[in-house]
Amino acid sequence: MIKYSEKIKRLIENHGKPPREVYFDNENSGYVPREVVDAVRKYYEEIGFGNPAITHLKGWEALEAIYSAKEIVAETIGSKNPDEIVFTHSGTESNNLAIAGTLLTRRKQGGKVIVSAIEHLSVLNTARFYANLLGYKIIVLPVDREGFIDIEFLKTLLDKDVVLVSIQVVNHEIGVIQPYEEIAKVVKDKSEDIVLHMDAADAYGWVPIDVGKLGVDLLTISSHKINGPRGVGVLYVKEGVVLEPPIKGQHSVESLWPGVENTPLIHGFRKAVEILFRDVDKRISYVRGLRDRLFDGILNNIDDVLVNGPLGDKRVANNVNVSFLKVEGEAITVELSLRGIYVSSGSACTSRVLEPSHVLLAIGRKHEEAHGSILFKLTQYHTVEDIDYTLSILPEAIGRLRKISSWK
Amino acid sequence: MIKYSEKIKRLIENHGKPPREVYFDNENSGYVPREVVDAVRKYYEEIGFGNPAITHLKGWEALEAIYSAKEIVAETIGSKNPDEIVFTHSGTESNNLAIAGTLLTRRKQGGKVIVSAIEHLSVLNTARFYANLLGYKIIVLPVDREGFIDIEFLKTLLDKDVVLVSIQVVNHEIGVIQPYEEIAKVVKDKSEDIVLHMDAADAYGWVPIDVGKLGVDLLTISSHKINGPRGVGVLYVKEGVVLEPPIKGQHSVESLWPGVENTPLIHGFRKAVEILFRDVDKRISYVRGLRDRLFDGILNNIDDVLVNGPLGDKRVANNVNVSFLKVEGEAITVELSLRGIYVSSGSACTSRVLEPSHVLLAIGRKHEEAHGSILFKLTQYHTVEDIDYTLSILPEAIGRLRKISSWK
Repeated sequence: MIKYSEKIKRLIENHGKPPREVYFDNENSGYVPREVVDAVRKYYEEIGFGNPAITHLKGWEALEAIYSAKEIVAETIGSKNPDEIVFTHSGTESNNLAIAGTLLTRRKQGGKVIVSAIEHLSVLNTARFYANLLGYKIIVLPVDREGFIDIEFLKTLLDKDVVLVSIQVVNHEIGVIQPYEEIAKVVKDKSEDIVLHMDAADAYGWVPIDVGKLGVDLLTISSHKINGPRGVGVLYVKEGVVLEPPIKGQHSVESLWPGVENTPLIHGFRKAVEILFRDVDKRISYVRGLRDRLFDGILNNIDDVLVNGPLGDKRVANNVNVSFLKVEGEAITVELSLRGIYVSSGSACTSRVLEPSHVLLAIGRKHEEAHGSILFKLTQYHTVEDIDYTLSILPEAIGRLRKISSWK
Repeated sequence: MIKYSEKIKRLIENHGKPPREVYFDNENSGYVPREVVDAVRKYYEEIGFGNPAITHLKGWEALEAIYSAKEIVAETIGSKNPDEIVFTHSGTESNNLAIAGTLLTRRKQGGKVIVSAIEHLSVLNTARFYANLLGYKIIVLPVDREGFIDIEFLKTLLDKDVVLVSIQVVNHEIGVIQPYEEIAKVVKDKSEDIVLHMDAADAYGWVPIDVGKLGVDLLTISSHKINGPRGVGVLYVKEGVVLEPPIKGQHSVESLWPGVENTPLIHGFRKAVEILFRDVDKRISYVRGLRDRLFDGILNNIDDVLVNGPLGDKRVANNVNVSFLKVEGEAITVELSLRGIYVSSGSACTSRVLEPSHVLLAIGRKHEEAHGSILFKLTQYHTVEDIDYTLSILPEAIGRLRKISSWK
């Protein structure tokens, strides 16, 4: 019997390495620049390993690496206390700690949970599961056709039974920037007792975040979303907020997430944070220029395209998401891959099972519109040439696929 | 105000780099050899990133890396189906998936859970928390003074209400090898319906594991315990066994643990597995020789020492754990660190909070005996010179500490 890995190897061989490559699939697995890889490698080679909980040189070296990173992250979001920065292994785990952690803590009190319909599944599915398990009522807040929640409607839902509100700052698929400051104000004005969680994985470094001004209790950051190594998540936990973690074990530095910290990766993440905040405005304006160049090129040269999410200032600078009508997203990812262009489709993480993205359905896309959606996630490492190469391939590729499509 | 990281930096500067270093703290944060670091680095530099769920070249490359690793791991434990190998981010997470996953799945049925008193806290605390949350009865199986469970007693506990049994193959602190084949037989002879989990994090590569012969349902492996990169855990899940994961989100390859897989680390883990199984008997016999040299040197040259766990064949080859009476473990870790010898104390992961190890208390050690415990975890990368250097330092160091100890 041929091993599955052998079958995939043949697929890779048949595909061949394209002469030029442009990687846009940063939603799912972020590009990691040499500078960050080097930081991880150097940590392994020069420092090594060590449990930050143990009182020996290797432990102190690990503790120093972890606190340096906490301090820098705290600074970038306006936290004055590095202990408010909690490390997990992913944005998914941070969201689980926030949602499950709050619902487990307050389970004797019970009440209502409010989440938006376009939250990442690590918020939505966690909220649904624990609400059901522990007897909370869950309210899924609808969004409009661009992905914005209705603040007036949110206001009407906020009553004394609401335990937790979780709303993203920036959506991971369609790039919509919520009126997050207003949302935070509305929730906290209603009651300081409501736990407010904001998933800022796609916002960190792209829109200003100040936890003090926001008054947010819990805020998620993810390393791979900022071109850091996969394997590091952060949950900001405001001093005094109590969480009961859904997973248990031995604790090292973090009292809220079990296991010894992954110091080499945290060190790499710290480097990614430093890069991210080097010259923020310049980077954002550069990436926004690429974004609009890609949008314009697509909309001017290809017919039957829907833009998913808003355009302009209310869209995060690094997100391009469109639906090519009358063509399958999976066919597009394969066709573009042969030319060295790597994008994702549908819901970024579910294309293998061909389930349409819950985000696209929530903004009113039909199934066939969601299936033809393509997400390009840009970084400062992309060039104008990358965009122009992509635009030189796209119209013909979409045209060819539409010709052979069964929907024609 | 001086930053905490600055304070630690001063501590590190004052400590200075010792001329010779021997790293024994592999319980908490395993040594990663250059060969494995290179595998991770090369993956980043030559392959990069990519979501295994997406149909493009980068996705297939990631999928291939994941399946190659699954296939190799499956082979080493006698599984014929690579899909039985599930990746998480740590042994802790694998244990949580096993324990919480089983208890959540069977929550409507309820019943009894049996765990041994010396399980890793990611088993013990998870079992306690979810048993309490979901209304199971938990039975903590005592062990004798060497750490062995009583199989006859276990037999008397096994009735139709038992849902889950979780017993380690090898203990992480005191190295006792349980009669794991007999345990598995006793449990499965009683009823195929009892879910049997075995934490093999400290056994994998050191004692023979064949999941088919054992009939075990769930089995934990951890990358950092085998000198792989921290950040990869494995749970073997027998085909047909149903688990409800305690954390939720988007799924990529794994349907049992959310989030995109950490492919570069999985690739490094695969390298560590290959190294581990290169020449198993030779490695084990080499390390056992080092172990006995260290034990003999300690017991022949230092008075008032208790061996924690059994000696000889019923102890895993890489574990040396002793209690130095009349001296504080933390003082020893610091004193030895100044000479470049890095060890852990008490419960490996709790020395910062100075709580004595639950494992040592379970084998009948008094608090003061547990506090003076030191764990040396050996690897094939240690040399006879490392052991002899350690033995040249230890007697004098222990003697000096005893002189200044308040217990004198």
